[in-house]
Amino acid sequence: MLDIGILGASGYAGAELVRILLAHPEPKTLRLSSVSFEGKKLASVYPSFTSVKAGQGSLSLESADAVIEKSSVVFSCLPHGYAEAAAKRCLAKEGLFIDISADFRFGEDQESYTSWYGKTYGDPELYAQAVYGLPEFNRAAIRKARLIANPGCYPTSAELGLYPVLAKGLADTESIVIDSASGVTGAGREPTQSTHYPECADSISPYKVGAHRHQPEIDRYLSKMAGKPVSSVFTPHLAPMNRGIVSTIYFKMTKALDAKDLHELYSSFYAEEFFVRILPLGSAASNRNVRLSNFCDISLHVSSNGKTGIIVSTIDNMIKGAAGQAVQNMNLALGLEETEGLTMLPPAF
Amino acid sequence: MLDIGILGASGYAGAELVRILLAHPEPKTLRLSSVSFEGKKLASVYPSFTSVKAGQGSLSLESADAVIEKSSVVFSCLPHGYAEAAAKRCLAKEGLFIDISADFRFGEDQESYTSWYGKTYGDPELYAQAVYGLPEFNRAAIRKARLIANPGCYPTSAELGLYPVLAKGLADTESIVIDSASGVTGAGREPTQSTHYPECADSISPYKVGAHRHQPEIDRYLSKMAGKPVSSVFTPHLAPMNRGIVSTIYFKMTKALDAKDLHELYSSFYAEEFFVRILPLGSAASNRNVRLSNFCDISLHVSSNGKTGIIVSTIDNMIKGAAGQAVQNMNLALGLEETEGLTMLPPAF
Amino acid sequence: MLDIGILGASGYAGAELVRILLAHPEPKTLRLSSVSFEGKKLASVYPSFTSVKAGQGSLSLESADAVIEKSSVVFSCLPHGYAEAAAKRCLAKEGLFIDISADFRFGEDQESYTSWYGKTYGDPELYAQAVYGLPEFNRAAIRKARLIANPGCYPTSAELGLYPVLAKGLADTESIVIDSASGVTGAGREPTQSTHYPECADSISPYKVGAHRHQPEIDRYLSKMAGKPVSSVFTPHLAPMNRGIVSTIYFKMTKALDAKDLHELYSSFYAEEFFVRILPLGSAASNRNVRLSNFCDISLHVSSNGKTGIIVSTIDNMIKGAAGQAVQNMNLALGLEETEGLTMLPPAF
Amino acid sequence: MLDIGILGASGYAGAELVRILLAHPEPKTLRLSSVSFEGKKLASVYPSFTSVKAGQGSLSLESADAVIEKSSVVFSCLPHGYAEAAAKRCLAKEGLFIDISADFRFGEDQESYTSWYGKTYGDPELYAQAVYGLPEFNRAAIRKARLIANPGCYPTSAELGLYPVLAKGLADTESIVIDSASGVTGAGREPTQSTHYPECADSISPYKVGAHRHQPEIDRYLSKMAGKPVSSVFTPHLAPMNRGIVSTIYFKMTKALDAKDLHELYSSFYAEEFFVRILPLGSAASNRNVRLSNFCDISLHVSSNGKTGIIVSTIDNMIKGAAGQAVQNMNLALGLEETEGLTMLPPAF
Repeated sequence: MLDIGILGASGYAGAELVRILLAHPEPKTLRLSSVSFEGKKLASVYPSFTSVKAGQGSLSLESADAVIEKSSVVFSCLPHGYAEAAAKRCLAKEGLFIDISADFRFGEDQESYTSWYGKTYGDPELYAQAVYGLPEFNRAAIRKARLIANPGCYPTSAELGLYPVLAKGLADTESIVIDSASGVTGAGREPTQSTHYPECADSISPYKVGAHRHQPEIDRYLSKMAGKPVSSVFTPHLAPMNRGIVSTIYFKMTKALDAKDLHELYSSFYAEEFFVRILPLGSAASNRNVRLSNFCDISLHVSSNGKTGIIVSTIDNMIKGAAGQAVQNMNLALGLEETEGLTMLPPAF
Repeated sequence: MLDIGILGASGYAGAELVRILLAHPEPKTLRLSSVSFEGKKLASVYPSFTSVKAGQGSLSLESADAVIEKSSVVFSCLPHGYAEAAAKRCLAKEGLFIDISADFRFGEDQESYTSWYGKTYGDPELYAQAVYGLPEFNRAAIRKARLIANPGCYPTSAELGLYPVLAKGLADTESIVIDSASGVTGAGREPTQSTHYPECADSISPYKVGAHRHQPEIDRYLSKMAGKPVSSVFTPHLAPMNRGIVSTIYFKMTKALDAKDLHELYSSFYAEEFFVRILPLGSAASNRNVRLSNFCDISLHVSSNGKTGIIVSTIDNMIKGAAGQAVQNMNLALGLEETEGLTMLPPAF
Repeated sequence: MLDIGILGASGYAGAELVRILLAHPEPKTLRLSSVSFEGKKLASVYPSFTSVKAGQGSLSLESADAVIEKSSVVFSCLPHGYAEAAAKRCLAKEGLFIDISADFRFGEDQESYTSWYGKTYGDPELYAQAVYGLPEFNRAAIRKARLIANPGCYPTSAELGLYPVLAKGLADTESIVIDSASGVTGAGREPTQSTHYPECADSISPYKVGAHRHQPEIDRYLSKMAGKPVSSVFTPHLAPMNRGIVSTIYFKMTKALDAKDLHELYSSFYAEEFFVRILPLGSAASNRNVRLSNFCDISLHVSSNGKTGIIVSTIDNMIKGAAGQAVQNMNLALGLEETEGLTMLPPAF
Repeated sequence: MLDIGILGASGYAGAELVRILLAHPEPKTLRLSSVSFEGKKLASVYPSFTSVKAGQGSLSLESADAVIEKSSVVFSCLPHGYAEAAAKRCLAKEGLFIDISADFRFGEDQESYTSWYGKTYGDPELYAQAVYGLPEFNRAAIRKARLIANPGCYPTSAELGLYPVLAKGLADTESIVIDSASGVTGAGREPTQSTHYPECADSISPYKVGAHRHQPEIDRYLSKMAGKPVSSVFTPHLAPMNRGIVSTIYFKMTKALDAKDLHELYSSFYAEEFFVRILPLGSAASNRNVRLSNFCDISLHVSSNGKTGIIVSTIDNMIKGAAGQAVQNMNLALGLEETEGLTMLPPAF
């Protein structure tokens, strides 16, 4: 019986974790914390969770302290800068701590973290233990990890999209452009002017151009994949949809390849990966086909002048980009079947 | 091991059945037919079903004949007017036939069927055997049925919404107004001018006002619920959303009730129904909270002048309004747990 | 040269007034006030108004005092409860005051206003002078008015939809149901949970069922149209679209009429009204066809049982439902051509 | 009095031209042709054009022959491959012919046209006379032109976005990436699977990656702007919105510039252009702010590594990307004020 706790369960990533874990076949108890809604039920925040008669449990929101104390697996969906103390308490009990925020993604590199997130490490050694939870890249380490930094949503799409060509040295690492669009859930549950329906419906809005916090995370892991420094250009856009990230990725090829070559490379590279689907040549990936699933769909293309490889990589930002990948990491770290609770097919519409 | 066949699997209801049945825990084989795509894979029609390595089977599209022959449970998602022959073949083999179309919903009343659908019965006795598959109203009969007429999407929302007050004689049956909005999937997969994105986005369009085919189905079953003839007024609207039906239902109350009275009545009436959720007093039902689930959410209200009861009843048109309810009917008719494969919670967003 | 002031110009109705008035052919100066953005430019709130080189003026936001002092025509887009003092100052200067809020819509009936809006009248005589600004109903009075209460958006659609049958005594006044859907701009510019994109996209949500403030305004004016008390049932829904109101209106007919009868009645009744378009028999009105215009489109129907008349009445909530109607009122009160600045056709998509 | 004809008026670009020209202040008659709807009224295709009492004319759809014969200014909205004969007839009468299709955009370069569009030139000399109608680039020639090739929608956004840095030699012409998203109206009025609401709502779909017909048009004119061959990489995406193109454009800078440098360059370069708005430093352009207008909004950025310039360029695809630009071209070619009929501000929402 798993004792699972979710900190910050009333946010979007937390709510999605609850939904996925309730359907996860492993026997478990779920405990949830929320600062804003402590003492209430999750259904008071999200009526879709209105408890049913043959119920999915009470789904009450408690304090973080109570949740950490009673849980051996803790998912943290707290905002950046709040995970350190919780992680320490959890690890002290030999628990498993999976952090959805950016806090542990920079590992030993406090400088980047501080420069982009404006916070410092209290206990740098703790951060050095953290394992980056991108299973397709880092599976062996995740299996042994106790402290897992769940990747960002944009980075997940970009890194899975580029891993094969970087690993094979086929991309000019000075020329990578990652142009991404995200659904509005990526901005979280808090209403703002830019997520107010009339101001984001029916339009595409780039934001934080040249200045988004996922840029250093992307470059850090692309560099590890390439085995040398990569400095990419990443631009996010807000799109009028609830879920999904579509990253269209450009790179100059270091040798002449056509789309068929890229397709063969990717098909072979990801042959054993359940959650990565390489689309047939000639189709282009769209987030509509991965919605509500843990899949990453990838399509391969070459520019009409033959010089630039174009990769489209798409995920559900809340699942493979957050809660689903966190459960995939939990499965690995606990020695469960990696795909358990995550095999749902995306709906066709 | 269930041998399940789906006729017309490449349409929207068929695709949704496939998705739900693949996740259904009962051991089974799935066979699919399609006139338009025979010989192809379902993933060529719906890339979201792109087969994964540790696969969900081939999901190939065969002929209807092949599917009927090999299946003991047949779901028909064919257009109106095509189910009769398939049903006869299935029943001759002592199979279970569940029809998603309107063909069997009028039972012995060929006249209404012909008048609204323009077709006639080949074998009237067959139709007389059909059981209307609204489990909350007709559960005992469904358990024994071999031929089930799955209800329409609008009728499901309207009938579940009105059943308690009709059964208790609390609604003036001459005054019922059912004002419904549906997502665009309700129009099916075939592109048309009115479902072309630029012509249905960002707008609400009533259609077939005073002339929709679900009107006689609604009145037929409301009359059975009331134990006397009901002649309601039903208006459908196309809304810019993929899934869901929201029916706002008005009726003059035959005795003075307030919202609390209605809430108590409904809570008690549906106390044992897993799939009907009566919302807390003061909230109003919205399809966003039942999306991708088999739930019907109902909220209760009274007009400011105190005379008119107002019921909001909402479902996912493709699930409780089609494929999910069909699986619920299958579970009942096969003696399985009624909720099997249907307990997924709606996502919060 | 008109000296026009807009109080509360940074809200949605204010911004729409600015846009319409800038394109209005009459020579004018525009002065704008905003409490939240005083000292800034309107383009800092709405980048669509980014000033162009051959410019539309500075569009700076000043204090309300400054604007009132310098303007002879004042539009007030302040929240409910704030118009009285401004109106008195304007009228004292013999100016024209057009209020977009509900403050003056109840005229002498302070009791209703207080009961629904929670405020009281400082100077009841002022309110008694106010003229309800629905030109198709009240044109003669508007021409002579100095203080105009611009109608609410839902009331405009409902009242124009019902006026002919009420005036002719063809509707049972005890049976009227008004079921309306509105775009999200109706909720204003302030972000809230229910207007947060992920929580209102892809869904229809009824709200304030049996308790919306437009109910008493609707009943007040329907009663005047009918010449006897009308107590209707009105339910608003939030729909995933930016603009528009679609009201589907039901009433029992006091004598047998078919859709053709209703169509003839309405065509004749509104024959001289530029802004009311009666659609051809067989079509149903949709807000997509009135978007960004001052038109009200109306379609006529009868229920399949022949007893209930069904009227669909649709407007752009921000134009005929707010800013456009306010300009129409200004044109009338100033003796200008009623349609001036308001003849734009709705875009086809 | 202008005698204006629109060929193919029942398509989306045609309908938008009708709307814009009806509001154009110049006295005129409008004649419309349509193959599919000859003999009908435009309002039967687009109910938003339902004729009003104080009417905008009959808007009847005639044959192309009739329209060409009676018009001295002809806009052609026919599909690719159909303009040549009409253009010859119009020019023979010394009329002005403005073609919205791609037919004349390649001028003397029949090879590119044939290779991408699969058609040949009947009269190559005619094509050599055509003037590319991008006024900000080609104004002098347009003033004297009788045969104008109106630019494509994607090319307009890309070319206006890149013109200043290309003209100044500041962009490495081997590194240009143009990543564009378009609203669904860009696909035209004909319903298709990919524009069926349920299959394009709530998702971003790249299409024709490495193979879109606007690629050679873009490269042809970027090369003219740069004064040397440019081979860019262009990828279009379908986005769930009605109108608008957002192009996010990347290029390596040939000398170190920051965003402020780019901003100054663009502000100065486009200082005299009414329809190009350079946004304040720090904001990012979004199509929501140019909707329903003839503006092109441009914002300037530099990647976090300082090497790549990023330009966001956005237009309304149906206006500056089609009908509005065509009217701008007409104004120039007829010696009217360039902005006449095109000064409408975009609505704020």
